[in-house]
Amino acid sequence: MQQSLVLGIDIGGTNTAFGIVDHRGRILEKGSMPTVGFDTVAAYIAALRNEIMPLLDKAGRQWVTACGVGAPNANFYTGEIVQAANLPWKGTIPLAKLLQEAFHLPVKVTNDANAAALGEMMYGVAKGLKDFVVVTLGTGVGSGFVVNGALMYGHDGFAGELGHVNVVRNGRPCGCGREGCLEMYASATGIVYTAKEWLTQRSDDSVLRQCAGEVTAKQIQEAAEAGDSLALEIMSYTGRILGETLADVVAITSPSAIIFFGGLAKAGELLLGPARSHMEQNLLHVYRNKIAFLYSDLPDADAAVLGASALAW
Amino acid sequence: MQQSLVLGIDIGGTNTAFGIVDHRGRILEKGSMPTVGFDTVAAYIAALRNEIMPLLDKAGRQWVTACGVGAPNANFYTGEIVQAANLPWKGTIPLAKLLQEAFHLPVKVTNDANAAALGEMMYGVAKGLKDFVVVTLGTGVGSGFVVNGALMYGHDGFAGELGHVNVVRNGRPCGCGREGCLEMYASATGIVYTAKEWLTQRSDDSVLRQCAGEVTAKQIQEAAEAGDSLALEIMSYTGRILGETLADVVAITSPSAIIFFGGLAKAGELLLGPARSHMEQNLLHVYRNKIAFLYSDLPDADAAVLGASALAW
Repeated sequence: MQQSLVLGIDIGGTNTAFGIVDHRGRILEKGSMPTVGFDTVAAYIAALRNEIMPLLDKAGRQWVTACGVGAPNANFYTGEIVQAANLPWKGTIPLAKLLQEAFHLPVKVTNDANAAALGEMMYGVAKGLKDFVVVTLGTGVGSGFVVNGALMYGHDGFAGELGHVNVVRNGRPCGCGREGCLEMYASATGIVYTAKEWLTQRSDDSVLRQCAGEVTAKQIQEAAEAGDSLALEIMSYTGRILGETLADVVAITSPSAIIFFGGLAKAGELLLGPARSHMEQNLLHVYRNKIAFLYSDLPDADAAVLGASALAW
Repeated sequence: MQQSLVLGIDIGGTNTAFGIVDHRGRILEKGSMPTVGFDTVAAYIAALRNEIMPLLDKAGRQWVTACGVGAPNANFYTGEIVQAANLPWKGTIPLAKLLQEAFHLPVKVTNDANAAALGEMMYGVAKGLKDFVVVTLGTGVGSGFVVNGALMYGHDGFAGELGHVNVVRNGRPCGCGREGCLEMYASATGIVYTAKEWLTQRSDDSVLRQCAGEVTAKQIQEAAEAGDSLALEIMSYTGRILGETLADVVAITSPSAIIFFGGLAKAGELLLGPARSHMEQNLLHVYRNKIAFLYSDLPDADAAVLGASALAW
């Protein structure tokens, strides 16, 4: 008898990726389409249905038992997307309900960082871990906390907003309307902010001066890799703020590992070396030298779909 | 048939309280003895056995099925007390093992704040809550996090050290060897520190000047209750730091309630009013106006024993 399969959908700000996944994390069928360019959510869902239905038929529709979805600001308890800054739809979208109607499958949704944590636990570097954190370092900073083997959703499904922990009182203005959030320092957005600020205020010689006002996170990472001292200092400053914040995260949740995910995590030791050393310096003695820093090893293109699919099991 | 009973033991820095408790939180027998004044742990355990054995006989030894213990720095997973600053025994004490041998009962230990969280969930204001935090404001700051209906121990049993989250970089020196920990601001120790600092640096008229270098937390609380403006400002400053920290705690764990416990919590609205308002001001929008601030309503003398007993069920 064939084992059961699940449908995983990752809804990003630009693209939507999906796949049909077996219990061992093999993606049997997959595809993607733009998230943007639809007048209404209904039109988007209809287009998504048109893309996915042939895949379901190919894999054997009768074997697909559930659907898991990762999306920014998606709430596990309500099945809704609430005020997603990076999606084209405003207000509250009953995502689980719409997808359930489209596919006639039970649907579970959660935010992308939680989905990543589930994916790592089921198929990735967190296999067998019961207490860990996934930190996504991308345009923003996201996080998914696994506590005693299960995702920590909080009472309302909104736990794990590490990107909106305060790191500098009256600091940089954040998209959330407050000031000094971690996400304004330790994300792609944050390092660009730091670079622009320092390029204006300081006179260091740096290859980044050529980019002037248009510097990108990728350019900063590349300059750091090439040994540019301003870029390295930006990584070190960013790592310090991230590491100090992680020390506080450890004091609250005491995870065995912190797993990094997302574009900025690719800076690797240039960023996470300073982050680890500042975390260790700021840890209470009982936590020292026992927390693993891990990198996601799931293939980039598949990780988000695998994470979403893990929710469905 | 009589229902089963448990033995609850609360080991404090000065006194040890114990009781035999039924499933509804009624303390059938109770007593206490000093924690200090014994040459060895073995002598302390022997004295404790002498105190408790008659109570076990009185309640009916055959009905007592387990023992739960709350103690500073006690670890649920190992059953040990590790480097407790406020207990007379240094190093690592195999507490669960020693008590198991003394009473021939299964023994579970945890730190006092975790025990308080369990007590509130089983018998107190947290009945029916699945995601909440207990914050103990005493000599230090402790915390116990309940996530999805169970205590969050972390991978090593040391989760929940909220007192050692950093609130001021390069701030006041803490007993843990680091600087700027919450506990050096938002505890009895912390408000005394603030008062002494301000009395030296400032020239406000205040009844606290009469206490000079010997001001106590109790005097500051009483002065604030009597309307002394310096004392009120100390409460407000302390509440701000506590509230800002709680906003970050919420961003990570999203609890439905925060429950306050301990001597300094008795300052009530004078302290927790400012704490609530600063927490709300610093919350990400999704969390606003839905987190309850609660006070423990378990009788002071019994709360710690009830908490310890809750661990045994």
